[in-house]
Amino acid sequence: MREVAVVGIGQTPIKEHWSKSLRELAGEAAFSAMQDANINSIDGLYVGNMMSGSANHQQQLGAYIADWIGMNFIEGLKIESACSSSSAAFRTAVMAVASGEINTAIALGVEKMTDSPGGEITSELATAADADWEVDYGISFVALNALIMQRYLYEYGWSKESFAQFAINAHDNGVHNSNARFQKAISYDQYIKSPVISDPITLLDASPIGDGAAAVVIVPKEKLNKTNNPIVKVIASSAATDTISVHNRKDPLWLTAAEKSSKAAYAQCGIEPNDIDIFEAHDAFTIMACLSLEACGFAERGKGPKLAIDGEIKLDGKIPISTFGGLKSRGHPVGATGLYQICEIVKQLKGNAGNTQVKNAKIGMTQNIGGSGSNIITHIFKSEN
Amino acid sequence: MREVAVVGIGQTPIKEHWSKSLRELAGEAAFSAMQDANINSIDGLYVGNMMSGSANHQQQLGAYIADWIGMNFIEGLKIESACSSSSAAFRTAVMAVASGEINTAIALGVEKMTDSPGGEITSELATAADADWEVDYGISFVALNALIMQRYLYEYGWSKESFAQFAINAHDNGVHNSNARFQKAISYDQYIKSPVISDPITLLDASPIGDGAAAVVIVPKEKLNKTNNPIVKVIASSAATDTISVHNRKDPLWLTAAEKSSKAAYAQCGIEPNDIDIFEAHDAFTIMACLSLEACGFAERGKGPKLAIDGEIKLDGKIPISTFGGLKSRGHPVGATGLYQICEIVKQLKGNAGNTQVKNAKIGMTQNIGGSGSNIITHIFKSEN
Repeated sequence: MREVAVVGIGQTPIKEHWSKSLRELAGEAAFSAMQDANINSIDGLYVGNMMSGSANHQQQLGAYIADWIGMNFIEGLKIESACSSSSAAFRTAVMAVASGEINTAIALGVEKMTDSPGGEITSELATAADADWEVDYGISFVALNALIMQRYLYEYGWSKESFAQFAINAHDNGVHNSNARFQKAISYDQYIKSPVISDPITLLDASPIGDGAAAVVIVPKEKLNKTNNPIVKVIASSAATDTISVHNRKDPLWLTAAEKSSKAAYAQCGIEPNDIDIFEAHDAFTIMACLSLEACGFAERGKGPKLAIDGEIKLDGKIPISTFGGLKSRGHPVGATGLYQICEIVKQLKGNAGNTQVKNAKIGMTQNIGGSGSNIITHIFKSEN
Repeated sequence: MREVAVVGIGQTPIKEHWSKSLRELAGEAAFSAMQDANINSIDGLYVGNMMSGSANHQQQLGAYIADWIGMNFIEGLKIESACSSSSAAFRTAVMAVASGEINTAIALGVEKMTDSPGGEITSELATAADADWEVDYGISFVALNALIMQRYLYEYGWSKESFAQFAINAHDNGVHNSNARFQKAISYDQYIKSPVISDPITLLDASPIGDGAAAVVIVPKEKLNKTNNPIVKVIASSAATDTISVHNRKDPLWLTAAEKSSKAAYAQCGIEPNDIDIFEAHDAFTIMACLSLEACGFAERGKGPKLAIDGEIKLDGKIPISTFGGLKSRGHPVGATGLYQICEIVKQLKGNAGNTQVKNAKIGMTQNIGGSGSNIITHIFKSEN
């Protein structure tokens, strides 16, 4: 199996892009990544997207986007695993290049949610849960997360306010990200006064939806030379699923798929959680950031909020997260989020993160969560001179 | 890159499965394939499906089906490329196993179309075309194929009746397939009298939709021994795209993506069209079977109908197609069709095809077409003792 490296990244701002179509957003990210990689052709395109079939009445994004960027006749596939779709697309691209089938691939995530001609986005998001056994009873995606958070508060004795620092840290970093949906800081006072969406989740626990696209170019590492330094290698890639329904889990407060996929990833590259310099976690809700940190071994079970309260998730902390704003402040165009995470890790590992640069970041991890913890994909990257 | 072999197949009948849910159909095919392969666990599940998000209000089929078949915590992804989705899933599974990431994979195609709670299937199918530049002007998927067929008749001087043998041959073979949607022969007289759907396409030019699931188990060939004989190896896998809109093609009568993907596949295994003993073509419409045969080098340009009229597509012809009924008689549960094709080729290459066995079939090819020729995936298989 060939080693694989990321040689270019591209991102659009995340916002309400009413004047740009899905293909225009995707094209912008793809061309930007190709320019960054200094290439003008590819032979495989792997698109992560959750809801274009229903929200935009357009399937076939592989051929659709390959056509739009003028790369006719290449391979073009769409991969879907709800909110982790673009990490799934990235993983598929990695396997395609590693297997030798493809030499230069783009993994691209795109989602256009804010001016959908088809239906209502809360219903679309709920298709990540179990249609028969969860959604038909009226539960929404935020409500599933609220049930988990409520139980967490009860079991481990934390107050809802203990989660404030997850949101505050994300917004502090998002201030410096010109692609972020919300580029402003929030105060503790604002957090505790923010309106309830689904108790105990309030507005400032939840990430905003948005339109956006992010892309990376990947190639076999053997094709690179010293002029490409620093090279960002993919040193681990792992995906794991869990029950689709939250109620079917032995312990709904433990993200088994996050544990499985992170442990497998650590094993692939022979490292431990302590070796990770930076972690782009999936903070779709503050409770998810907390559970992800615990399941990946960065915090003890039931102690996630302490890590945030102690400042260990900040840029100079033990395990910086959401360094470009995370889902909370950068925004969550669901099927594109995983590739925003990956673009951000690459910037950090190349030392291009500007105001939010984590010092001496050499090993970075992304974790992207599909559904209520039902499809979790972990990647680890390392920069090499 | 490791060599990969198919060691088990499973299929449900294709019909209106009103009493079975999407997951029940998928589970039936998966368990049947696992039983055939004599295994009780897998580590990767790759699901081909086009429209579950809108038609069944259920995304995340990777986690959803892994959960249903009791394979929690494995990798589970959904891959979509419209009507070629399950060949895309198969190709992804092949790359996963070939790259060494996964050891035992199931590629599964499933589609549930006949009792959809969400919307109207003609509209769902149209999402394979260009929403902005084709569908918004009112064209349906059958109408796009009708335009192509009309032009074909005009350019090459064939009559519409010249296409009869594609449908008659498919139905002749479908009689013997207990999984087929229509298990009865049709006459030339019935064909020419069948009602127009979109001129010149009549009812008996078009494949019927349906509900169904098909699955295969794939493993590295190195794990097999003589007790597994005959082994069916995957000797070529190739995907190519074309413009999403038919009107953007230089020649709408030539399936460039079929030519590209078949030529790449022939090159991968060092064979020529003449070496193929059997071909499962994508006869969603009779015109598509014709164009596929031409683009893959089995017929000269503009001469596809002659191959059918001369009987060369029959079981004892030069290039037998639709040996289990094809899409026309077996049925076309869109995102599952590619895996039905693959299951059928495996049966043929193992000598298990019963009444429709092609004599001495050693090398078989499948071609699955997504959209109006915009995403075409070709696989070649070889049996080995």
